[in-house]
Amino acid sequence: MIDFACKQFDINEIIKCGFGLTRSEYKIFHFLVKNPQKEADTNKISKQTGFDLTTVQKAVKKIYGHGLIIRRQKNLAKGGYTFTYMIKSKEEIRDAIKKIIRNWTKTVEENIDRW
Amino acid sequence: MIDFACKQFDINEIIKCGFGLTRSEYKIFHFLVKNPQKEADTNKISKQTGFDLTTVQKAVKKIYGHGLIIRRQKNLAKGGYTFTYMIKSKEEIRDAIKKIIRNWTKTVEENIDRW
Repeated sequence: MIDFACKQFDINEIIKCGFGLTRSEYKIFHFLVKNPQKEADTNKISKQTGFDLTTVQKAVKKIYGHGLIIRRQKNLAKGGYTFTYMIKSKEEIRDAIKKIIRNWTKTVEENIDRW
Repeated sequence: MIDFACKQFDINEIIKCGFGLTRSEYKIFHFLVKNPQKEADTNKISKQTGFDLTTVQKAVKKIYGHGLIIRRQKNLAKGGYTFTYMIKSKEEIRDAIKKIIRNWTKTVEENIDRW
């Protein structure tokens, strides 16, 4: 637990909040971070994590929105295509969350300036 | 209210926490900030704020410990001396609290690095 202004924070809660993920979406995100894979579509991730396809799609969309997952179009043998997803490195994820934390701090400091 | 990692913070609570003040001590601190005066000993501050001398002394000691109050020795006509206190500028107080906030942020970031 981390202390910030006399309140306790769990590191996972901070990341979850920073990326605007629900509890389920964070679990999917966490799974991808722990099990990075080159090619995984939402169906595969759904099977791997046990979360339904809709939740996986929402999670992936949010993570993609934060620029933390690489999306590739994969053509299917039977025609058409699907998207595969590959989570970015932990280093890049760390940098992204740090940027968010710095923005929160900036807001706190701006309030101090108006105090 | 300020949002930091999905928790709500009141600016006064942040300052109170940063300087390690109790609720009463913060009220004394706040009074001094709002009513800066060149010469005030703890007796005077006690009368002005309605807080007992012990609480005022504790508050002043903590504020002094943070380098946010100027202490002057004042010789008494009847011999001996007393200390008078003058709160520093709001600008200096803001800088001090910002430094503390940056340290908290640093701790959060160090935890992200270990994540």
